[in-house]
Amino acid sequence: MGNYAIGVDLGGTNLRIAAIDEGGKMLAKTALDTAVSRGRGHVIDELCRATEAMQSNFNGVASLSGIGVGVAGLIDSESGQLLESPNLPGWNNYDVKGEIERRIGTSVILENDANAAALGEQWLGAGRGFESMGMYTLGTGVGGGLVLNGKIWRGWNGMAGELGHCNVEPGGHPCKCGSHGCLEQYASATAVVRMACEALATGADTQLRAHSGNVELSSRVVYECAIHGDAVAKQIFERIGRALGLAIANMVNALNLPIFVIGGGVSAAWDAFSPSLFDELRKRSFIYAGTTSEDGTGTGGRRHTTRIMPALLAGDSGLYGAARLPLML
Amino acid sequence: MGNYAIGVDLGGTNLRIAAIDEGGKMLAKTALDTAVSRGRGHVIDELCRATEAMQSNFNGVASLSGIGVGVAGLIDSESGQLLESPNLPGWNNYDVKGEIERRIGTSVILENDANAAALGEQWLGAGRGFESMGMYTLGTGVGGGLVLNGKIWRGWNGMAGELGHCNVEPGGHPCKCGSHGCLEQYASATAVVRMACEALATGADTQLRAHSGNVELSSRVVYECAIHGDAVAKQIFERIGRALGLAIANMVNALNLPIFVIGGGVSAAWDAFSPSLFDELRKRSFIYAGTTSEDGTGTGGRRHTTRIMPALLAGDSGLYGAARLPLML
Repeated sequence: MGNYAIGVDLGGTNLRIAAIDEGGKMLAKTALDTAVSRGRGHVIDELCRATEAMQSNFNGVASLSGIGVGVAGLIDSESGQLLESPNLPGWNNYDVKGEIERRIGTSVILENDANAAALGEQWLGAGRGFESMGMYTLGTGVGGGLVLNGKIWRGWNGMAGELGHCNVEPGGHPCKCGSHGCLEQYASATAVVRMACEALATGADTQLRAHSGNVELSSRVVYECAIHGDAVAKQIFERIGRALGLAIANMVNALNLPIFVIGGGVSAAWDAFSPSLFDELRKRSFIYAGTTSEDGTGTGGRRHTTRIMPALLAGDSGLYGAARLPLML
Repeated sequence: MGNYAIGVDLGGTNLRIAAIDEGGKMLAKTALDTAVSRGRGHVIDELCRATEAMQSNFNGVASLSGIGVGVAGLIDSESGQLLESPNLPGWNNYDVKGEIERRIGTSVILENDANAAALGEQWLGAGRGFESMGMYTLGTGVGGGLVLNGKIWRGWNGMAGELGHCNVEPGGHPCKCGSHGCLEQYASATAVVRMACEALATGADTQLRAHSGNVELSSRVVYECAIHGDAVAKQIFERIGRALGLAIANMVNALNLPIFVIGGGVSAAWDAFSPSLFDELRKRSFIYAGTTSEDGTGTGGRRHTTRIMPALLAGDSGLYGAARLPLML
């Protein structure tokens, strides 16, 4: 009887749950809405009910190693508790781990969602075969995760991997963290839409104007304008690539990792932002100056090139990574 | 009979050698000029002769574990060889390790000088008691080293820890690495003198002018003007602090290390640059926003504060760290 684990992706909008075996095969997956407005108790009830239902399918077939839960926010590595979550108002210091453990009777590991995504990609995605890697998730914000020697690097008290707050423009756009010019302000879906609105406000001639009254002006719309040749939209993705390239160059210089993986919704625009990303990385990285190949596979210059790759597990990186946590114990 | 190791600091100007026992006690120390102009063979001869002379004092008293050599430049972690060194022209790909081993008959570990300094401070200096730390050495350039879980983090092929090339000003002063606005361009002794010359060129009213014809205008002179209240000199150190604060904030956000240590000649100006360093760190660090105490000892805000401390082993951090390498095997 093999082992499996349940991975949970607990977002502000969606609650996704998957059963994944120790070989990395997804056995089952379910998705619910996260009814945040009905309170944390309700969300935990739903989560536990769905987990137990999934679990019942495998009784006598496979043995449950544990439950891994990925959640946006800061998690204290000592206690394993959620300290604060931007997407789950009212959950600060809520005993998520204990509540689920008491209900289901199985040990729970809580992890930052971007850290879980990094582990998922290192296990089964773009980082497969590498012991260490860095990951950026370009979503509403920019998350980050570092896997060093096969393990998530949590740092002193669990708060490592906040790569979205690497500075790319000291006097740049204000960030909710209190700083100015964080990567998140130039490479998140939110930033794409903000930069589009800024361009519209200058009176620029752009296809984006056709969408400017549309409340759904989204990073996807901006991307579609870019691939249809709109100069303003293309500039926005070039800016994203430059910001990512500078931030990754800093990490390459500091950590000399073999691979960085880029996931999250905005990573679908890879072809629009990656040329300027590589251009900036070549200029900024002391180690890989002049050597980084666009496909991330070449060698040359001082040494091997670093690889920068889009994520391979699409929206499931975090589910795989969350399930991986109990399987690694 | 206890163990000891020999640590060597092989710089472009000075060659320093120390015998250090496994408890961290310095048993002997010697300093020579590095006669680079007489060729690498000559320098290696001198190094081996001095090492053998030192070693002969301990025959039958203590057992030599090995020799650690810290050298500025890039070292390939797989082969242990020096790939290139800015301070030792003509040494690229020279088999430093093999040459010394053949002469002395003891195993040699080659390490980047700033990495060795980081290990020394973590063993016996400001980082004592911490398993992980980051170090910046503010000298002619800005070196860096990371110790993670008690070991130097070398990265994929030995080139990690280049913290001096973290970007602090995307369109800033050109750096010899090919980028613009690297930390090294704002926080090295070279940068202090450059910024002083830039201020003089603007016609600023400053005590520095009295030294402007002096070929020995040094970072020390600028510091002395700063502590005597010269506004222009003070601004230069404030700029250094801001650059360091921004660079350290990036590393705090990425790695969540408990302590960063600042060494090298410019660190003697700690009181002139540290206030703006802490100010910037408070603004820029997502994790420690509003919590970093100046003395690095407080707790509060989200969690414990990170410590930023001057190095404790002065110019000997690298010697201790180099000796530590064979003692850790």
